[in-house]
Amino acid sequence: MKEQSHQIIRSEFQVFYQYEVFFTKNLFSLENKTLCEFFESQPLDGSKKKILVFIDESIVSHQIQLLESIRRYFDLNIKSVQLINDLIVIPGGESSKNQNEHWESVVSSINQFGIDRHSYIMVIGGGAILDMVGYAAAVSHRGIRLIRIPTTVLSQNDSGVGVKNSINYLGKKNFLGTFAPPVAVFNDSSFLTSLDDRDWRSGMAEAVKVSLIKDPIFFEWLETNSPALVKRDLEAMEYLVFTCAKLHIEHIKSGDPFEFGSSRPLDFGHWFAHKLEFLSGFTIRHGEAVAVGLALDTLYSFLCGDLNEGECSRILNLLKSLGFQFDHSILRENGKDHLQIALEEFREHLGGKLTLLMLSGIGRPKEIHSMDANLLESAFLHLVRI
Amino acid sequence: MKEQSHQIIRSEFQVFYQYEVFFTKNLFSLENKTLCEFFESQPLDGSKKKILVFIDESIVSHQIQLLESIRRYFDLNIKSVQLINDLIVIPGGESSKNQNEHWESVVSSINQFGIDRHSYIMVIGGGAILDMVGYAAAVSHRGIRLIRIPTTVLSQNDSGVGVKNSINYLGKKNFLGTFAPPVAVFNDSSFLTSLDDRDWRSGMAEAVKVSLIKDPIFFEWLETNSPALVKRDLEAMEYLVFTCAKLHIEHIKSGDPFEFGSSRPLDFGHWFAHKLEFLSGFTIRHGEAVAVGLALDTLYSFLCGDLNEGECSRILNLLKSLGFQFDHSILRENGKDHLQIALEEFREHLGGKLTLLMLSGIGRPKEIHSMDANLLESAFLHLVRI
Ligand SMILES: NC(=O)c1ccc[n+]([C@@H]2O[C@H](COP(=O)([O-])OP(=O)(O)OC[C@H]3O[C@@H](n4cnc5c(N)ncnc54)[C@H](O)[C@@H]3O)[C@@H](O)[C@H]2O)c1
Ligand SMILES: NC(=O)c1ccc[n+]([C@@H]2O[C@H](COP(=O)([O-])OP(=O)(O)OC[C@H]3O[C@@H](n4cnc5c(N)ncnc54)[C@H](O)[C@@H]3O)[C@@H](O)[C@H]2O)c1
Ligand SMILES: [Zn+2]
Ligand SMILES: [Zn+2]
Repeated sequence: MKEQSHQIIRSEFQVFYQYEVFFTKNLFSLENKTLCEFFESQPLDGSKKKILVFIDESIVSHQIQLLESIRRYFDLNIKSVQLINDLIVIPGGESSKNQNEHWESVVSSINQFGIDRHSYIMVIGGGAILDMVGYAAAVSHRGIRLIRIPTTVLSQNDSGVGVKNSINYLGKKNFLGTFAPPVAVFNDSSFLTSLDDRDWRSGMAEAVKVSLIKDPIFFEWLETNSPALVKRDLEAMEYLVFTCAKLHIEHIKSGDPFEFGSSRPLDFGHWFAHKLEFLSGFTIRHGEAVAVGLALDTLYSFLCGDLNEGECSRILNLLKSLGFQFDHSILRENGKDHLQIALEEFREHLGGKLTLLMLSGIGRPKEIHSMDANLLESAFLHLVRI
Repeated sequence: MKEQSHQIIRSEFQVFYQYEVFFTKNLFSLENKTLCEFFESQPLDGSKKKILVFIDESIVSHQIQLLESIRRYFDLNIKSVQLINDLIVIPGGESSKNQNEHWESVVSSINQFGIDRHSYIMVIGGGAILDMVGYAAAVSHRGIRLIRIPTTVLSQNDSGVGVKNSINYLGKKNFLGTFAPPVAVFNDSSFLTSLDDRDWRSGMAEAVKVSLIKDPIFFEWLETNSPALVKRDLEAMEYLVFTCAKLHIEHIKSGDPFEFGSSRPLDFGHWFAHKLEFLSGFTIRHGEAVAVGLALDTLYSFLCGDLNEGECSRILNLLKSLGFQFDHSILRENGKDHLQIALEEFREHLGGKLTLLMLSGIGRPKEIHSMDANLLESAFLHLVRI
């Protein structure tokens, strides 16, 4: 008999992921072959796969014919998968991530329609229901193939093209979730036309963010095109979404996609944004809060002497010209008292050591591990007076 | 402005996982440095990590001093992590995976003690609570570092060294779960001495299974050592556990660890086992049901002409000599009617195309995609008469 004590077996392996993000218009019009080509490219193994569709109620209320278009598209264009005829319409927005009953009902539908690991779930909507349905898909049968069709600026350029999902739990934002790449994402710009002005604007904060840490040329493009963007020029928005999504995906590919480390560059400007969203009871949109966070960290970078005054002004001016505001009443009332708490909560949220990005220039991020309390307070006071 | 329609961005990346499985005895005795060496090998990033411990009640009832030993071990041997003083004792066994309240209370504790993504959860117990706590850890903050200390034969040689977790939901076994490798596994053989005879035996079915599909020399070792194993020789069991765990881990490393395909060789003998566990209301243990499943597939392989009579008898004799029985009353009553249903449910469980292993010899598996209904029924009738 061999001596077994203190023997060690090492397990190590790599898991390979890949998915494509398609940029298109009128995805479900019969002439558009994007979706049907995707299914044709998928490996067949002799079994007919099912697909179960969840749709954001807001979209259906703007495009009442959409449900019928989807049924017709699958009926006429797609042979290899079987659409479940009940298209499930669910209320969108943050509350879908808050109440457990929404998530439970998605899981129940997955069970009811016998959706297995090799079938598909398609979710059409804003970032909130993408996160919620995505989480249900990720844990049912340990992961069902997910197709995302994001319909807001934020979800098309950021959340919907990434690898995360979540729901809120125990009163905490995104407490439960997983890293689970989709099998495909379809960004259809025609959905963006029905967004209200706040949601049209909100997602642009992520574009400013990613330009600041990755791409000064894109920052200049945003400066030049902010008037068109504000006037809801769809072509300008398509370019913004495409470029921002590309920068996000390049980051995911080259970095630490499942965030095992403590550094999360894409969370630039987010440490205070999270707190502000929370303080406002989520009446301030994610992107609106990110705009405030970007402004605060920009001012802090300037006050530290890392960022020059000219660049600091250009950043604040771009945010303002896109229509973002920094003087939310909630900030004036008690924002200052929450600065240190917000930093500590962000550290806990990342886990491990506090790691933040600040700027030493447009397109030139700088990693830091602590913030000077006095400078931070000054930056904050500048901000609410801007 | 560039034309964006029908543009495509491809995201592809690899995620690297690694963990070690340590084989030891008396893990929490002060002289045993295995655990403290593990923590010393972990990267420090300047922040002190917490560790929250969950323990199977059965273990505490057999080793009342264990809680104190754990506290003392951390106090004296481990400087880099901070033990949460409340060691959380939870009821073990399958019911811990059934009632949502157990899982919810684990998630609440994670929240209450502020366990972040870079802190640790340690779970000590049988496969059931490893699965349940593992699932809670995997989805809280999108994944907290998990240390598993399996305490049954089955969990030490199979479930605890792998990459899966789950809970039962909507009345379905393992309906919710994820693939989430642990950061380390500690197999302490001294826990096995307090197992009752059924749990001591049950886990050996997985060793027979893996020997049949991967390692004929190990099969011979099992034949030779079955008397010692039945007499609860701990050294023999340590060898069985080590060898079986090694074969499992080698399979995971070399194959499809997150089971994106439809083939799951480690599920040999499991298609009918799952049904039998369910029909018995989980009064038949997983390993006991696997032994029945192995016997059924062995007989089927023989009746197909793939396996010779001598090898067929050796397999059935080994299972019997280890103390497994095939004539469960539930099988005689209505097992036959469930054969086809069980096959279809297994197909759904895998997703996609039905893919099963049968044997063309000891150590020589053979993939098939359908079973002959008449031969299967004959195999079943042979089985319940054995
Ligand atoms: N998973 C990630 O990596 C990630 C990243 C960032 C943000 N998020 C999450 O994304 C969510 C925010 O997403 P969001 O900004 O898209 O908001 P949202 O999903 O709440 O949508 C905003 C509102 O617009 C409606 N809507 C959606 N599409 C529409 C359309 N085409 N026309 C008209 N109305 C439409 C929705 O029903 C909702 O009422 C937050 O929950 C946030 O936590 C996730
Ligand atoms: N995740 C996977 O890959 C995987 C693989 C196979 C099985 N499983 C799961 O594992 C579970 C079965 O695990 P199991 O066979 O360990 O059963 P178990 O966890 O139900 O344990 C059996 C009984 O033994 C008790 N016990 C545990 N350790 C003990 C000890 N050292 N001394 C005395 N009593 C002890 C438990 O409290 C329980 O009552 C099932 O839920 C099954 O689905 C998971
Ligand atoms: Zn964001
Ligand atoms: Zn098994």
